[in-house]
Amino acid sequence: MAGDNNDRMLFATALARRGGELGLQYFRQLETLTIESKGHQDLVSEADRNVETFIRQELAAQYPEDGVIGEEHAALAGGSGYTWVIDPIDGTANFLRGIPAWTVVIACVKEGVTVVGVIHEPSTGETFYGRRGGGAFLNDRPIKTSPTTSLTQGSVGTGFSNRREARAVAKLIDLLLQEGGVFFRNASGALMLAYVASGRLLAYVEEHMNAWDCLAGMLLVEEAGGLVIPPDPKTVLEEGTLVIAGGKGVFDKVHALCKEAFSL
Amino acid sequence: MAGDNNDRMLFATALARRGGELGLQYFRQLETLTIESKGHQDLVSEADRNVETFIRQELAAQYPEDGVIGEEHAALAGGSGYTWVIDPIDGTANFLRGIPAWTVVIACVKEGVTVVGVIHEPSTGETFYGRRGGGAFLNDRPIKTSPTTSLTQGSVGTGFSNRREARAVAKLIDLLLQEGGVFFRNASGALMLAYVASGRLLAYVEEHMNAWDCLAGMLLVEEAGGLVIPPDPKTVLEEGTLVIAGGKGVFDKVHALCKEAFSL
Repeated sequence: MAGDNNDRMLFATALARRGGELGLQYFRQLETLTIESKGHQDLVSEADRNVETFIRQELAAQYPEDGVIGEEHAALAGGSGYTWVIDPIDGTANFLRGIPAWTVVIACVKEGVTVVGVIHEPSTGETFYGRRGGGAFLNDRPIKTSPTTSLTQGSVGTGFSNRREARAVAKLIDLLLQEGGVFFRNASGALMLAYVASGRLLAYVEEHMNAWDCLAGMLLVEEAGGLVIPPDPKTVLEEGTLVIAGGKGVFDKVHALCKEAFSL
Repeated sequence: MAGDNNDRMLFATALARRGGELGLQYFRQLETLTIESKGHQDLVSEADRNVETFIRQELAAQYPEDGVIGEEHAALAGGSGYTWVIDPIDGTANFLRGIPAWTVVIACVKEGVTVVGVIHEPSTGETFYGRRGGGAFLNDRPIKTSPTTSLTQGSVGTGFSNRREARAVAKLIDLLLQEGGVFFRNASGALMLAYVASGRLLAYVEEHMNAWDCLAGMLLVEEAGGLVIPPDPKTVLEEGTLVIAGGKGVFDKVHALCKEAFSL
């Protein structure tokens, strides 16, 4: 079908897996990597840059008119109306320390709305993907958000933004524990959003995420039957967004906790 | 060498991998499992019981005079002075929801002191193991705790004990964030202890853990050059223990935060 973005979804899914293979080669030779610090918990590696370069080259060859925004290189404007949004390695701190929970993230945005999202975890071979209106999938099977209405029936993923008041997340965790809930943080925000889409986590919250970290996962949560706070299409690519995403049964409760913790 | 426990370590390492294969078979057929609730975040599955049964049978055949304590079945007294301490699936909540971070944990204790520890993560094929006086290893390579002296240079794993005041962990996280640190919780305490031993996390803290969740990992942290609060040999098998484990450079700082958060 024309206009359903299926071709871009399939291309991005295969590309994330190929990018993941390249990332894995670096991951297995960690000791040879050059580590640069660009601030607290925000390390960048050679692998990050080279995986992004690879993905950009492949996108440019297949969709030369599309724009590209990535974490590691300058934005490239396009003329097609489509913009690819790439995080070559989400969970860079994990990657650099040898923790397997890191992902290759590719989203595609049209007029500020995410239309394709792919989150691939090379260490486990799990690829979460979907397109707007087409559902969400893990490898070959459809996924759904958790149907539960109780915060006691699972865990809530929590991010950690060094761009906001760090202690707000401690307040959120305190409120969640008081509701009988539990927190989860494996340090890959995209992977935790994929876990929400697949019902493994009840919800995910982070006061601020960059577009490349969150857009793919937010689309997957919506396509898997969950809810998100919609990002502002005019500003999300440049400024990022607040992220609250969860199954329908717990979304309002989680949103209420975030309002209190983050002073929304 | 006699008396160095090398034979028991090698046997337990192979056994944990075989137990993990059995667990993986269940993990891949999650939908067929019967889930029982025995309290908040403390679910037990058929897989848990059957992996423990398998491990017990193999231990009984190889070391018929050894005692066995496990999470899922009654304790078995032995005459050899050795007691095996088993958690067939650490991270059961992950397992039941499809999150790959779960481990098979086998420790061996003599006179209240852990002499062998094995933590195997089937989803990634990583096996962390060691014996007292013999060092700690991940698959074929020696591991070391992080050499850093700063809490800003990595993450601290945090557990969640429903046997203690839950909100204390929120206080701990708040204190950690104030020090410029970051928390991590992938919901497998044993795996996080293994990450401390391999320098992937700076430290791990949990106000109370059962012996089968923590003894293997605490030994690995010690053998990898780190420090732990030593459990009471007289009570640890029956009552469990406080767990504070970390690299030498941050241990005192983490201990100080725990004293405040947990009112030690």
